[in-house]
Amino acid sequence: MHSTLSRRLASEAVGTALLLAAVIGSAVMADRLCGGNAGLALLANALATGGALVALIVTFGPISGAHLNPVVSLAAASQGELSWGEAWAFVGAQQLGAVAGVALAHLMFGAPLVAPSTHERSGAGVFVGELVATFTLLLVVRGVTRRPTPWAPAAVAATIVAGYWFTASTSFANPAASVARALSDTVAGIRPLDVPGFVGAELLGALAATLFFRWLSPPAPDGPPTP
Amino acid sequence: MHSTLSRRLASEAVGTALLLAAVIGSAVMADRLCGGNAGLALLANALATGGALVALIVTFGPISGAHLNPVVSLAAASQGELSWGEAWAFVGAQQLGAVAGVALAHLMFGAPLVAPSTHERSGAGVFVGELVATFTLLLVVRGVTRRPTPWAPAAVAATIVAGYWFTASTSFANPAASVARALSDTVAGIRPLDVPGFVGAELLGALAATLFFRWLSPPAPDGPPTP
Amino acid sequence: MHSTLSRRLASEAVGTALLLAAVIGSAVMADRLCGGNAGLALLANALATGGALVALIVTFGPISGAHLNPVVSLAAASQGELSWGEAWAFVGAQQLGAVAGVALAHLMFGAPLVAPSTHERSGAGVFVGELVATFTLLLVVRGVTRRPTPWAPAAVAATIVAGYWFTASTSFANPAASVARALSDTVAGIRPLDVPGFVGAELLGALAATLFFRWLSPPAPDGPPTP
Amino acid sequence: MHSTLSRRLASEAVGTALLLAAVIGSAVMADRLCGGNAGLALLANALATGGALVALIVTFGPISGAHLNPVVSLAAASQGELSWGEAWAFVGAQQLGAVAGVALAHLMFGAPLVAPSTHERSGAGVFVGELVATFTLLLVVRGVTRRPTPWAPAAVAATIVAGYWFTASTSFANPAASVARALSDTVAGIRPLDVPGFVGAELLGALAATLFFRWLSPPAPDGPPTP
Repeated sequence: MHSTLSRRLASEAVGTALLLAAVIGSAVMADRLCGGNAGLALLANALATGGALVALIVTFGPISGAHLNPVVSLAAASQGELSWGEAWAFVGAQQLGAVAGVALAHLMFGAPLVAPSTHERSGAGVFVGELVATFTLLLVVRGVTRRPTPWAPAAVAATIVAGYWFTASTSFANPAASVARALSDTVAGIRPLDVPGFVGAELLGALAATLFFRWLSPPAPDGPPTP
Repeated sequence: MHSTLSRRLASEAVGTALLLAAVIGSAVMADRLCGGNAGLALLANALATGGALVALIVTFGPISGAHLNPVVSLAAASQGELSWGEAWAFVGAQQLGAVAGVALAHLMFGAPLVAPSTHERSGAGVFVGELVATFTLLLVVRGVTRRPTPWAPAAVAATIVAGYWFTASTSFANPAASVARALSDTVAGIRPLDVPGFVGAELLGALAATLFFRWLSPPAPDGPPTP
Repeated sequence: MHSTLSRRLASEAVGTALLLAAVIGSAVMADRLCGGNAGLALLANALATGGALVALIVTFGPISGAHLNPVVSLAAASQGELSWGEAWAFVGAQQLGAVAGVALAHLMFGAPLVAPSTHERSGAGVFVGELVATFTLLLVVRGVTRRPTPWAPAAVAATIVAGYWFTASTSFANPAASVARALSDTVAGIRPLDVPGFVGAELLGALAATLFFRWLSPPAPDGPPTP
Repeated sequence: MHSTLSRRLASEAVGTALLLAAVIGSAVMADRLCGGNAGLALLANALATGGALVALIVTFGPISGAHLNPVVSLAAASQGELSWGEAWAFVGAQQLGAVAGVALAHLMFGAPLVAPSTHERSGAGVFVGELVATFTLLLVVRGVTRRPTPWAPAAVAATIVAGYWFTASTSFANPAASVARALSDTVAGIRPLDVPGFVGAELLGALAATLFFRWLSPPAPDGPPTP
């Protein structure tokens, strides 16, 4: 009982918009309220992002799978769960949604709708961090996709809450988000110059996770494994 | 196996009272204990509200659906899940409960039982924030109603925890709460003057979410969609 | 497939001991680490207590029901789910366990094993707070008992996390804990003088919740209601 | 439908590596961002560790059981759920993974890949704390193993989040982690000198929990108890 493609694309676009609104909005709010304590601000940002992910995956999962992330859609296509044409349409919807979400957050908090970020995020540690973040996220996503479990929304949200803290890049782990955040001249932004490195790390991490998980849990000869 | 209407109304009234007691009580406690750090206070307020929502939805859900919010009841009526008469009775019970909950919080913390708030909450960003907050909440509520899932209590609570941080209005998203909080001369209050704007934004957000979700996941010709 | 009474009593005693060790131990650790910010300390204490409740209810629930609280056992007996003899044996096991857990926390943190508390907790607001806390907890417990749900561990933990913040008494909601905490001369203690007021409020709150929930969701004529 | 042993060992090694990367990485990040407030840093560290545990247990549980901890594997072997040969292979994979995870965290945060820790962790209270931490963790693990429940990932994560706060040792509760953390000259390290005491306490706590839970919930004469 799949939804039509237009509905699935709308689901991905609106879901990704609300995800980015949550990421940027909560970062701005935390920056304003936390009295300069960056740790407290990151804690609030992480919990708000995790909460948004639970809510959005529960709501949009039954419509479009709630990928909300290009590497999730491309990994699904690589494993035959989605056609490549659908995957690229998903990527487009996610990218449009991500930019709209950034603008929506700026509208709520009185910042320019879009403005290039000046927030530097670079260095080997950050690059490795973003690779580890996306590797971990995609392992979890492949896991809950190939071995369906009611834990999917919580496992994805928990990965990101943890990743905000344990990866040196604070775990963007999402190329649509990385591009859109280049348009945010706030604490949550990323310099346009640094985006290619982030996206490259995300693609490498996602590829490694997809290949590793395929070896770890191979498809059965005639269909998906019995859960 | 529905409960009688009187039991359902009591469930909505008591559930909404405990929700507002949690919202106001935890805001007052946080204001007193957090040493002037507004970010830490909002974090505590958000987690306490989220905890209360999980507990109340699990407890009162099987009795009355645990709407605890007029726009949830009105949206349900608009989709034929509740008669309009029942919905308006729910709204009355929720409003009575919300005011009682505010008074209960004041009683516990030694404030006047009810007193008009002087806390200004206005401006375009706040109005848009409240619209986004209620749009998001109602999308989630429509989602878990039309595609039943065990995640319902967590998804609703997670929406509000995130909304406290990512919306510029701190996500009231509930007309009964907005009216009742006008009677709280505490950090959690809202000036009576600002209530119509909040309620207007909430109605617009709820209407938009209900229409959008109905398009996204249309009812089957002969009944609700197979989950 | 019930466990023997001795196993059930051991389950209640050890479960309550670990619960009190978590409540007292995390309060002491938070008091030492949080640099005098009482709000941050309460947040840590609340999340640690909530985590312990989830773990203990999941673990001991299948053995003894994981009441860990005299008013839960007495309410169960009043509704015919437990004999009165079993309930009083449970209460004894819980009280012994609670005292042992307090001593265990003191042993870990280098405090005297037991010592009378000097922490005053009194006043009308606190009394009402403790009544509201126990009323809320028992409503939730009655709800998840009469309408079984996988959410039981989370709903109980969420109630206490919220209650630490929204009730003026910080939600002891447990007579065995109130008595045992009188033996803790730490930030988590309660003056022996104030214990009767707490226990009285807890009994009143529990009684009100049990009667209210029985009216809200009456037993079927020939057995428990269909879930 | 078991995975092959090589896949199960890879699952344990990668899972434990990511767990240790999360533990060490989030401790370092928190130490840098939290402005010297040790309580706030521990809160972030605890929530990040808990999030990682949920994600890793959901992902690797269906492959290898997601033990990620030598005492969990040895306890399983002692109860006949795993052969001793498999258990020792698991222990080796976990220990390799733990060291790799520590090095990965150091790589992300620009510290030497491995360096002996100078962080003293000793004293009777700490030893008792580590014993209580591992006793509690193994009780929970035995509980969710012998009485299968969807709550397993959350119960284990909740135990560790609580244990970070309520045990005087901050709850390592894992010999592979204790050894690997001796190689981290960061806030998350432990002096090599103190490792034997930690491992000893962990073995005692695990043994006590396994024996106690076996008495509490004995195996049926002809197989595991009906859940």
